[in-house]
Amino acid sequence: MFAHNKRLQYTVRVSESNPGLANLMLEQFGGPQGELAAALRYFTQALAEDDPGRKDMLLDIATEELSHLEVIGNIVAMLNKGAKGRLAEGVDQEADIYRSITGAGNDSHLTQVLYGGGTPLTNSAGVPWTAAYVDTIGEPTADLRSNIAAEARAKIVYERLINLTPDPGVKEALGFLMTREIAHQMSFEKALYAIQPNFPPGKLAGRPEFTNVYYNMSQGGPEVRGPWNDDSKWEVVSDRLQQQGVDGGDGSASVQVSSDEEALLNQMAARTMSDPDADPLTGAELGMGPTPNGSAH
Amino acid sequence: MFAHNKRLQYTVRVSESNPGLANLMLEQFGGPQGELAAALRYFTQALAEDDPGRKDMLLDIATEELSHLEVIGNIVAMLNKGAKGRLAEGVDQEADIYRSITGAGNDSHLTQVLYGGGTPLTNSAGVPWTAAYVDTIGEPTADLRSNIAAEARAKIVYERLINLTPDPGVKEALGFLMTREIAHQMSFEKALYAIQPNFPPGKLAGRPEFTNVYYNMSQGGPEVRGPWNDDSKWEVVSDRLQQQGVDGGDGSASVQVSSDEEALLNQMAARTMSDPDADPLTGAELGMGPTPNGSAH
Amino acid sequence: MFAHNKRLQYTVRVSESNPGLANLMLEQFGGPQGELAAALRYFTQALAEDDPGRKDMLLDIATEELSHLEVIGNIVAMLNKGAKGRLAEGVDQEADIYRSITGAGNDSHLTQVLYGGGTPLTNSAGVPWTAAYVDTIGEPTADLRSNIAAEARAKIVYERLINLTPDPGVKEALGFLMTREIAHQMSFEKALYAIQPNFPPGKLAGRPEFTNVYYNMSQGGPEVRGPWNDDSKWEVVSDRLQQQGVDGGDGSASVQVSSDEEALLNQMAARTMSDPDADPLTGAELGMGPTPNGSAH
Amino acid sequence: MFAHNKRLQYTVRVSESNPGLANLMLEQFGGPQGELAAALRYFTQALAEDDPGRKDMLLDIATEELSHLEVIGNIVAMLNKGAKGRLAEGVDQEADIYRSITGAGNDSHLTQVLYGGGTPLTNSAGVPWTAAYVDTIGEPTADLRSNIAAEARAKIVYERLINLTPDPGVKEALGFLMTREIAHQMSFEKALYAIQPNFPPGKLAGRPEFTNVYYNMSQGGPEVRGPWNDDSKWEVVSDRLQQQGVDGGDGSASVQVSSDEEALLNQMAARTMSDPDADPLTGAELGMGPTPNGSAH
Amino acid sequence: MFAHNKRLQYTVRVSESNPGLANLMLEQFGGPQGELAAALRYFTQALAEDDPGRKDMLLDIATEELSHLEVIGNIVAMLNKGAKGRLAEGVDQEADIYRSITGAGNDSHLTQVLYGGGTPLTNSAGVPWTAAYVDTIGEPTADLRSNIAAEARAKIVYERLINLTPDPGVKEALGFLMTREIAHQMSFEKALYAIQPNFPPGKLAGRPEFTNVYYNMSQGGPEVRGPWNDDSKWEVVSDRLQQQGVDGGDGSASVQVSSDEEALLNQMAARTMSDPDADPLTGAELGMGPTPNGSAH
Amino acid sequence: MFAHNKRLQYTVRVSESNPGLANLMLEQFGGPQGELAAALRYFTQALAEDDPGRKDMLLDIATEELSHLEVIGNIVAMLNKGAKGRLAEGVDQEADIYRSITGAGNDSHLTQVLYGGGTPLTNSAGVPWTAAYVDTIGEPTADLRSNIAAEARAKIVYERLINLTPDPGVKEALGFLMTREIAHQMSFEKALYAIQPNFPPGKLAGRPEFTNVYYNMSQGGPEVRGPWNDDSKWEVVSDRLQQQGVDGGDGSASVQVSSDEEALLNQMAARTMSDPDADPLTGAELGMGPTPNGSAH
Repeated sequence: MFAHNKRLQYTVRVSESNPGLANLMLEQFGGPQGELAAALRYFTQALAEDDPGRKDMLLDIATEELSHLEVIGNIVAMLNKGAKGRLAEGVDQEADIYRSITGAGNDSHLTQVLYGGGTPLTNSAGVPWTAAYVDTIGEPTADLRSNIAAEARAKIVYERLINLTPDPGVKEALGFLMTREIAHQMSFEKALYAIQPNFPPGKLAGRPEFTNVYYNMSQGGPEVRGPWNDDSKWEVVSDRLQQQGVDGGDGSASVQVSSDEEALLNQMAARTMSDPDADPLTGAELGMGPTPNGSAH
Repeated sequence: MFAHNKRLQYTVRVSESNPGLANLMLEQFGGPQGELAAALRYFTQALAEDDPGRKDMLLDIATEELSHLEVIGNIVAMLNKGAKGRLAEGVDQEADIYRSITGAGNDSHLTQVLYGGGTPLTNSAGVPWTAAYVDTIGEPTADLRSNIAAEARAKIVYERLINLTPDPGVKEALGFLMTREIAHQMSFEKALYAIQPNFPPGKLAGRPEFTNVYYNMSQGGPEVRGPWNDDSKWEVVSDRLQQQGVDGGDGSASVQVSSDEEALLNQMAARTMSDPDADPLTGAELGMGPTPNGSAH
Repeated sequence: MFAHNKRLQYTVRVSESNPGLANLMLEQFGGPQGELAAALRYFTQALAEDDPGRKDMLLDIATEELSHLEVIGNIVAMLNKGAKGRLAEGVDQEADIYRSITGAGNDSHLTQVLYGGGTPLTNSAGVPWTAAYVDTIGEPTADLRSNIAAEARAKIVYERLINLTPDPGVKEALGFLMTREIAHQMSFEKALYAIQPNFPPGKLAGRPEFTNVYYNMSQGGPEVRGPWNDDSKWEVVSDRLQQQGVDGGDGSASVQVSSDEEALLNQMAARTMSDPDADPLTGAELGMGPTPNGSAH
Repeated sequence: MFAHNKRLQYTVRVSESNPGLANLMLEQFGGPQGELAAALRYFTQALAEDDPGRKDMLLDIATEELSHLEVIGNIVAMLNKGAKGRLAEGVDQEADIYRSITGAGNDSHLTQVLYGGGTPLTNSAGVPWTAAYVDTIGEPTADLRSNIAAEARAKIVYERLINLTPDPGVKEALGFLMTREIAHQMSFEKALYAIQPNFPPGKLAGRPEFTNVYYNMSQGGPEVRGPWNDDSKWEVVSDRLQQQGVDGGDGSASVQVSSDEEALLNQMAARTMSDPDADPLTGAELGMGPTPNGSAH
Repeated sequence: MFAHNKRLQYTVRVSESNPGLANLMLEQFGGPQGELAAALRYFTQALAEDDPGRKDMLLDIATEELSHLEVIGNIVAMLNKGAKGRLAEGVDQEADIYRSITGAGNDSHLTQVLYGGGTPLTNSAGVPWTAAYVDTIGEPTADLRSNIAAEARAKIVYERLINLTPDPGVKEALGFLMTREIAHQMSFEKALYAIQPNFPPGKLAGRPEFTNVYYNMSQGGPEVRGPWNDDSKWEVVSDRLQQQGVDGGDGSASVQVSSDEEALLNQMAARTMSDPDADPLTGAELGMGPTPNGSAH
Repeated sequence: MFAHNKRLQYTVRVSESNPGLANLMLEQFGGPQGELAAALRYFTQALAEDDPGRKDMLLDIATEELSHLEVIGNIVAMLNKGAKGRLAEGVDQEADIYRSITGAGNDSHLTQVLYGGGTPLTNSAGVPWTAAYVDTIGEPTADLRSNIAAEARAKIVYERLINLTPDPGVKEALGFLMTREIAHQMSFEKALYAIQPNFPPGKLAGRPEFTNVYYNMSQGGPEVRGPWNDDSKWEVVSDRLQQQGVDGGDGSASVQVSSDEEALLNQMAARTMSDPDADPLTGAELGMGPTPNGSAH
């Protein structure tokens, strides 16, 4: 069960109204790498988790991320506060309001016109948050790696926001939030490596004949060999022919259809054949007009 | 530039038509952990990548994933082939066709009615593929971790499909595809750890006073301590009061608004106050009727 | 700040594994009328709310809805638990696993294959949760009405789930969750009517000449007059001509364009005119073939 | 059946081209609170409605909303008209066109580049309209409340647009559209309260022991009591322990699994345990390098 | 302006309740090729259209498609009618209701549980309608082609539904709707070819040296030459080298960056280089455990 | 199988960094009419295609579109290159970075803050690419028309981008890409007309009595007759009554329900009737306050 206390995890001190900056902050509120995605990612993992240690950790961190969502949400709310009353009360000249709404840059107009200067669950471009951002699949050796990566991404987006934020109070709170992503990543790393073995993830082993092969699919430019594809560890296949039908077959696709199915398929094929021997007049040619500006006559 | 050869990377041999199984296979065609997501993830990273080694590797693997998309797509096409002609030619009784479309289970009806027995870019529930699945952010120490996690997830979904597939030819091809995810994960791991340092990702260090703190946010049940939160490495904060306002402040949020802004905010506040001393009759009470089936009178 | 306790708000006792029922329960987990939508709706309203009474109430209810999300999530997790191990461990025959996954009906196959028997943030059809479900606009006389409506909808979906659930423990917990929607609706009603006046919402009055008009736009069938359109309270306009250009104008749309703009528009119009005097041969006619199965020759 | 007349319901007189203003107007064309959402909300309710009075009213209002969609669409088209020819004919310098497209502010560039200066079904941020905005659930005591709320929201967004629109003809038409939302809300209110009882919505009564309880979930700040939670009408539960397991149980979640299921779950648990006694070296630690910029060694 | 008459354009006579069939019909209600997409496609084109002939035609057809939306919506409503009362009134045994909801096949459970047996704006898989289906771009020589294609697609989906529908009244109405798509396609064809020239669409001519080239990008299988790529009309380029850098350049991508930019890029490159000479231990290797089930040691 | 060569199909030469222009180019990278949509449209058609000529053509063009995706992606990457390092390295003043990110206009801020100056799979408004853009339905006479239309749309969007691009190297590459859409359209036209007959698409003929009817649904303005609706080819129905119930029926919708179903429907109807004779007090009236600013008392 959740409980709430009105004190934030981190005190938010904003210098002045700035809807344009508020809008960029939305990236970590309702954006793909933001706190809502983080909180729900760990919370849903926790629900289906049976390992008591991981379940406890996931609930700890999910709850902290919810508290971070509240911190970043308060930053957005404070930055929007001055603009909120202006549009709602409508006492200024229309042209002044129009200018202030359009002139703040980026997509802050949406927050004001549609969301009333609030804290919408969108990213900084106004795209609504979607659970398609959450990549939980219910297997800890995969989910913990997903969590590690998610924390790394969130850390970077905070770093970018810190780099562009002149407001010292906002910057300080962002620094706290960024640091916590580092800490969470470390916890998830510990939990992953406390599963042994954890690679390959899951239960099935790979087929040995394909596990250490590196297919050199992109050629024609500088070939840089590194530990990810060097000959000491990898069997590198650069010959185009050897990249095809690697099972030794002919690289075709086939299915055994019943004779009824085959008859219908033949009937459909005959009906819909693009006759290679035709020389049809086409709609495009009808449209080229007396002085065509295309070609292929 | 891309070139195409009609031989597949792996030969696909399907035993018989099975639209229900085809539908489950869509998970790795147009689903969040599928080959399209993989190919586009690496391809978009490669485009903006300046490091020659990583760029080459990303293009190699992106191209291979496109070739895998083709393999899984051919599996789907073969499994759907028998059903395709049946609906298109419409020579059977309507009731028979209805039964065969509805009876295959899961969501294969969508593939047949809307997509004509083809290979739609959806997951197994018919949800269209979205780029919201792709979490590239343009920083290699984050993106490589995302790639490692994505390969782990794809490996697991293939493992599940292998576990439920009775068709031996499909199973064999799935085994190949699963194995390649293992190999790709290993390459991405090598590329990540060939960046030193790579943790924390990015350039900014965390604030030391918050880096090794573990906030024990979920309490009341079994507390399991492990390397992710034990006292030897972490400063564990369980006291609820110490989890609030961790900067030493009062945990409030504030902004300095101009006097004009403040006047408007006060005006708006007065206009929209929910009066705590009111005892209003409400719409709900109007709706309880003479013999109310709710309460709170 | 949020805190978490591992005891649920309501004890969940499930009789047996039932992935098909689990799937229907997702409607209130990641569906449009579910608990996540409720929690985030109130939480985002609370963040931007300045009225202390409403802010407190919104945080109370948002926090309770998060706790309900946890309850319904645990119901889903329990109902899926038996199936989870089966697919992950893969010790059964493939055909048996395929049958059990496809045979449970509805869309439970997605939960198992993609989400590993977990608690995905989707509705019962597998559609990922989206913030497009949240209709907060940052004005209390509108948002409280939205909340009232949302609670009414959630109550109904719970009622439907109760009607179809044979498992007594699940049914009991659903009854609790449904009841709480009733209570929340009553609180939101009180908060709305404690704002006076609250109708029309916002600050601008309507134009009196259009406020009590009822346009009878659908005709030709049984005309039922009720308090929503009867003559005692409404000026009913049924004459089609009087429904057009109700401002007294000609019902056209116009804009003053500059002469430069006009010249370009004329140039574009000439270039793209569909000549009404033409008698063109069309692509469709080219496609009718020697024995056309369409017409309009 | 629908019929169309080329005269608009309200005459649209626009002073001059203004693609930036056009873009904001899209909020009521293809946005969540706009006329398309309104028309489709009522139209789909009407289709499944069996009550003749409500069915008639819903069709009346749906048809009027379609006519409003046409009015707001014409406003957008007129405001965009000047810009349309400019880009299509391409007779100006590229740099001039680039400046005019980028300089209009907000997201009007999308309307021009992708939609050719037309009237796209998006909101002002370019997000495509989605039926996820429509919350119809097929129960009148819920749907009418949803309609009341939807009208209130639409009224407010029109009010905001009026506040920012300097063009007098646009402002006048917006005033008409806003007023009609007020009238529609009144009709829906009458239709709702003409159902008795209408609260709680639906057929099932709530469980009496939970109907009048108010859980004080957010604490630690100013506690404002109002009619939504005061002691005269509500049983207020503030004790954290009494908020848990409110059924009297232990607040746990359980399911009875078969012995086969249990064996598989145990096997999976053993395989995937995060060992709390491990002291694993992690990937993060490998990445800290010789001069680590993280910590937790 | 729109007006509505309660008589449908086509009488709908349904034999019996059939929620499973209702669900498949949704494809033409809220699916990508359905009537809503058609109506909105033509309506939005009409709004921005200045050519009086096309504008009139687009409004005619848009209005008819709305009337078709009403016809197909009534089919869905009639097919769902019997099931609607059952769930709402809840007088049957829960297990019976569960069986009837789950057993109808396909995704009809969603219509019943979430939408109360109504007519949701989704396709047959429950995916909400999105304006991403509408491909209007505001240029008639493109939009008319889009309309032609859209009518062709809608015709086919109706054909498939006819093939699977045993109910004679539904089948008859579907036949009408299908036929109207044929008629609309013919009108759009006439309007397109009444613009001369209409190919290439738009104003700019193609670059002659690339207009009649056919790049043979897929090789290695049966090469079928037809009018789309034969030598008489096309310059076929099969040589892989000649497919690259077709402008005569080296096929590279370059940008002139300022010296400041270059310095920053170099700094970033050095910081994030994946060292090709490294031989790093990786996280995957840490996870292989004492008895690794992967490889690449 | 796909192979990749690092030389592009067309050399990309960009004059200078310009994130604002980069953002507009995204329209053809991750937008609805862009190269990804094209490549996947043809690739998925090819997978399920059995006609050898069309299959080969679809694979040729799909592969070329992938190569175009790479070209446009490189244009975006080059235009963003200068900005990328600036935000990542963070050596400038925060206020300078904020200004440069917000000041570039349109939505380029998203590319920088969320995507690190990369090449996101979004359109120019930041909307993630979705497979809802792909309208393949698995019937060649429809799909080829869809392809023709898609090429026409893509040609136009390139034309608009050319009109607004001052950078000569970008303009030249865009000219190549635009030209190839013309060539592809010609190939698809040939393949369509090489199917005979191809109209109406599919197998079922239309009902003759409705095939050549033109319903004049929009009246009241200028009636322009052209080849799409003139009397020589069409039976034009303008009488409103004759547009209703065109099958000769009464235009109603009916279903035969069982007596059990009917009883439940009656019970539900009685329970939820909006009583037309009621004169209920409503929530809106409760909210009008002592000095109401609405009306309808």
